[in-house]
Amino acid sequence: MTTEHREITFELFHELYKSCSNWGRWGEDDQRGTLNHITPDVIQNAATLVRSGKAISLQLPLDGNGPQTGAFGRVNPVHQMVATGTDHLAHTQTYSSDPLGWGFADDSLFLFLQGGTQWDALGHIFRDGVMYNGFGAEEVTATGAKKGGVENFPTVVSRGVLLDIPRVKGRDHLEPGEAIYPEDLDEACEKLGVSVKRGDVVLIRTGDMKARKDLPEWGGYSAGDSPGLSLSCAQWIHDKNIAALATDTWGAEVRPNELPDTFQPLHLIMLVSMGLLVGEIWQLDDLADDCAADGIYEFMFVGPPLHVPGAVGSPLNPQAIK
Amino acid sequence: MTTEHREITFELFHELYKSCSNWGRWGEDDQRGTLNHITPDVIQNAATLVRSGKAISLQLPLDGNGPQTGAFGRVNPVHQMVATGTDHLAHTQTYSSDPLGWGFADDSLFLFLQGGTQWDALGHIFRDGVMYNGFGAEEVTATGAKKGGVENFPTVVSRGVLLDIPRVKGRDHLEPGEAIYPEDLDEACEKLGVSVKRGDVVLIRTGDMKARKDLPEWGGYSAGDSPGLSLSCAQWIHDKNIAALATDTWGAEVRPNELPDTFQPLHLIMLVSMGLLVGEIWQLDDLADDCAADGIYEFMFVGPPLHVPGAVGSPLNPQAIK
Amino acid sequence: MTTEHREITFELFHELYKSCSNWGRWGEDDQRGTLNHITPDVIQNAATLVRSGKAISLQLPLDGNGPQTGAFGRVNPVHQMVATGTDHLAHTQTYSSDPLGWGFADDSLFLFLQGGTQWDALGHIFRDGVMYNGFGAEEVTATGAKKGGVENFPTVVSRGVLLDIPRVKGRDHLEPGEAIYPEDLDEACEKLGVSVKRGDVVLIRTGDMKARKDLPEWGGYSAGDSPGLSLSCAQWIHDKNIAALATDTWGAEVRPNELPDTFQPLHLIMLVSMGLLVGEIWQLDDLADDCAADGIYEFMFVGPPLHVPGAVGSPLNPQAIK
Amino acid sequence: MTTEHREITFELFHELYKSCSNWGRWGEDDQRGTLNHITPDVIQNAATLVRSGKAISLQLPLDGNGPQTGAFGRVNPVHQMVATGTDHLAHTQTYSSDPLGWGFADDSLFLFLQGGTQWDALGHIFRDGVMYNGFGAEEVTATGAKKGGVENFPTVVSRGVLLDIPRVKGRDHLEPGEAIYPEDLDEACEKLGVSVKRGDVVLIRTGDMKARKDLPEWGGYSAGDSPGLSLSCAQWIHDKNIAALATDTWGAEVRPNELPDTFQPLHLIMLVSMGLLVGEIWQLDDLADDCAADGIYEFMFVGPPLHVPGAVGSPLNPQAIK
Repeated sequence: MTTEHREITFELFHELYKSCSNWGRWGEDDQRGTLNHITPDVIQNAATLVRSGKAISLQLPLDGNGPQTGAFGRVNPVHQMVATGTDHLAHTQTYSSDPLGWGFADDSLFLFLQGGTQWDALGHIFRDGVMYNGFGAEEVTATGAKKGGVENFPTVVSRGVLLDIPRVKGRDHLEPGEAIYPEDLDEACEKLGVSVKRGDVVLIRTGDMKARKDLPEWGGYSAGDSPGLSLSCAQWIHDKNIAALATDTWGAEVRPNELPDTFQPLHLIMLVSMGLLVGEIWQLDDLADDCAADGIYEFMFVGPPLHVPGAVGSPLNPQAIK
Repeated sequence: MTTEHREITFELFHELYKSCSNWGRWGEDDQRGTLNHITPDVIQNAATLVRSGKAISLQLPLDGNGPQTGAFGRVNPVHQMVATGTDHLAHTQTYSSDPLGWGFADDSLFLFLQGGTQWDALGHIFRDGVMYNGFGAEEVTATGAKKGGVENFPTVVSRGVLLDIPRVKGRDHLEPGEAIYPEDLDEACEKLGVSVKRGDVVLIRTGDMKARKDLPEWGGYSAGDSPGLSLSCAQWIHDKNIAALATDTWGAEVRPNELPDTFQPLHLIMLVSMGLLVGEIWQLDDLADDCAADGIYEFMFVGPPLHVPGAVGSPLNPQAIK
Repeated sequence: MTTEHREITFELFHELYKSCSNWGRWGEDDQRGTLNHITPDVIQNAATLVRSGKAISLQLPLDGNGPQTGAFGRVNPVHQMVATGTDHLAHTQTYSSDPLGWGFADDSLFLFLQGGTQWDALGHIFRDGVMYNGFGAEEVTATGAKKGGVENFPTVVSRGVLLDIPRVKGRDHLEPGEAIYPEDLDEACEKLGVSVKRGDVVLIRTGDMKARKDLPEWGGYSAGDSPGLSLSCAQWIHDKNIAALATDTWGAEVRPNELPDTFQPLHLIMLVSMGLLVGEIWQLDDLADDCAADGIYEFMFVGPPLHVPGAVGSPLNPQAIK
Repeated sequence: MTTEHREITFELFHELYKSCSNWGRWGEDDQRGTLNHITPDVIQNAATLVRSGKAISLQLPLDGNGPQTGAFGRVNPVHQMVATGTDHLAHTQTYSSDPLGWGFADDSLFLFLQGGTQWDALGHIFRDGVMYNGFGAEEVTATGAKKGGVENFPTVVSRGVLLDIPRVKGRDHLEPGEAIYPEDLDEACEKLGVSVKRGDVVLIRTGDMKARKDLPEWGGYSAGDSPGLSLSCAQWIHDKNIAALATDTWGAEVRPNELPDTFQPLHLIMLVSMGLLVGEIWQLDDLADDCAADGIYEFMFVGPPLHVPGAVGSPLNPQAIK
């Protein structure tokens, strides 16, 4: 867009932080945030969007080729076998004398819960000592989150909408540092023939993952500069009453961040003020190709986190069902 | 059921292993097995089962209170925080001088992939040196599964059916050692007013999890005696052309196992011969209560594994959508 | 001992906490605590104690059979292979075509640093917000210990002394709840013909490990009642100017603890006030048998922690060299 | 050295593999290999080398700054806190109401056992299906090593000798690809005034760690080209009857390897044929500086592995005591 944007200032931040707040909206004890927008009618409607009968995975493979390079101490997952087919072949397994020839393989995984395709839980982000709905940061200790844990999202089923920004702009991908403004979101809805409704899971594609995933160390994808949402999208997100938002970037918002000396300021509004479910490092390319082919940018969405009590994030294999 | 059952013998095993085989059915290179039963029409139909607009999680919480007690080396998952709210409060985090008061929490998880609610991948079980479709056990080494990995199941969306066996029998739960026979499955379908169709995900509840999960060390739930499927169900499963089967027990089949000196013989038929997707340690109690309340035992099912390349099993948060 | 002991009161605690303090003794920045007692002459003398030329390991095997049962979230270590001989045999390894027939095995370990035979670092224990020498507890965050880390103990070489309390008393082991008083330590020195000197590593055997290690879940060894040091030993320890102390119990001090509603009060004096190096879960039985056989209860001791920067504890394989 | 070296050929390998063999030397069941050279007199003599009373650590810090970059799946260790000082300050710990103000910190470590300063166990390397002394590779499965595990080395106490090759040659460090020949070892002994004796732990410094440890990703230190021992050193090592050998490189031998299409051929002779204890990634710089200062290149050495049953390698904090 070539239009002038409102200047991004600390005053704007404070204004949006206040105007977008959902504190108390669903009760003082609420820990589900914008998931409350998903009422039964939303789920009923979502199911009607299943037309051709296909399901598309939105998960980046969870392995050593992931984007983590040590920022925030995060490393890519480590998958280890604890029983193998070769042990079976060497007749060294416990059941090697089974008269029916039984053998097995088994495995473990060590992962950072936010190292790949993931949901942030509301206990992931604090501002001035509190998280969403005013719960104190002291609820999240070395033993886990007593408030704001991912277990508050046992199910995430809704209508999904894909806003494929680079496709709308006739480009392969946005550039690091390039912000997405509310006008871009509106333009995408219009050109892609889709509207955003209450309870939606809105998937915003920048092309950043596709552009960088094969570069050495992902070319700075993780914690580096990236395309993403401008702080000024906060009001748009809030007004649409969406349930969740996910992108194919490391951190959802544009980087370098728009306010000097700050880190991920939009997160403060999305997670702390709104209680919005935010997804990152999503693989939206397969879905984007499919939507471009059939021209349909809405679908049923199913993507619950793993039920890990006290966790502040979770991997998932999100499904777009068309 | 009080009817006489066919005697469970090694001859029967060999007969069923042969008659239930899907090797080559979907090509020599197939690694998806019975997921091939899920054609687009199956997914389209599944979506029509969403009526009241509610989603129910079928995952047992994935934490230190799980059923693992060391069998097969498996331990319950270890969840660890790598950034905390208390660090934020103590102003010790990297962004402690953020002008907007930014803070965060982050975490990791170490888990056995089959330690809680999970899918078996087809590379999990071997017989005489091979897995489903004849792939050699040497494909599964200490570096992971080159064949039969869980990445072959990127999406699992279908119709789900719950067969609540104890409810049909007017009991709280089946007993350890108590087998479920094909007649029991048919009886459940009839009494619950549901039929099993091609491509279905069939959930078989025994009540075993509910009965033992609060006992010390789960009362032998893991790798001990348990209710479950008789070997004689193999033909029923095969003939129904179902896509997947899951239970609320540790190992799906009745234990002690029905053939002397064998370990989990039905697994050999289900995974190696059929290529069936098998789920274990599923929390079916919430769903069972809901189905009992509305009398509807069919629903849309969405339950993909995590996309962990080369893994032979995966945790998941399965969703029943009604 | 049947003598009357001084009553263990909160007043006594406060008195000892003050009288045993080493804060500032080796400078305001000191993080080595009582290791400062090990001067070159101590090491020179220690080497002269090597007579018969034998070395004895004091480490409990670090594996799944260890004492941890979940207290403080600690679990026994998980050892996993990441390359195996069976993979080599199946010709599936990277170098399977090596003309010289090369193959290899490799492995990983996940462990709680204080789960087995270990040293406590000084950053392990706090009192009222501070650790040894007054460093603030905020130095120990989710990213590790900036003060009081185990890296401050790069070497631990000194004279070692074994005080085998049950042997002195003609018993197999002390009982849970049975306290060791200063008089018992003096009695042991006298009967075993050994004196305790500046810089010593004093090993105090209770027989508790031997008595319980083969019981199911170690019979409550970990975090349960146990024999151990009375709070009243603090002054004895301080006056002897020893460098370190280790026992064959879970927590060094007698349990139940001697002051109501407190947890491990002697730790506060030993670690926070004195800056004493404390070892727990040591396997002293082999050494005890050897000392009983030759009547020599002093030896050269070498037992550095692993150099894990920022860790508050470390496993080790301590060596008694006679 | 500028002398002509014997040509390194496959014939030489086979000749050395045979001539250096210790199979059967200490019995058919022996799993200690060259540690058998450490007899009591060796330990007695070693203790006499303690003169100035100082101990020097030879361990590289075991943390995320280590040399691992993914070769063989190895990653640097992950240290995680499970209890923190900040939790204590926030009064969120279990014992937050302790009348004496008790608080604590605790931590865990996930590490590749050969990821930093380490000993190879004899089960680490195979040749044509067997390890040292002819034990079959099938002894090392996904559940660990039944033969050749590191638990066979409960103590490692002996005389240590440092051969500081670059210092002898008046250089800072050897170059990647630069081989050390027997003549170089002899030259070092002569110029440094030290002889190598039966039972010794011989530390061979190349300067490679110091030269590369601060480069991005250690400049290819791990699994890349490096200075190291020529295959032709095998006979020298064998004839000296040393107990162990350790270097400051990733893999002890010169890389690229000297025989075409082979990987680490000297390992086959050292570990499989000889049963030699081999250490890698040792930090020898502090010791080298000390030896250069006092001109004494022999010392007491104490460096047992951790007692991890069934492990094929182990980290350690080796101690040179002078």
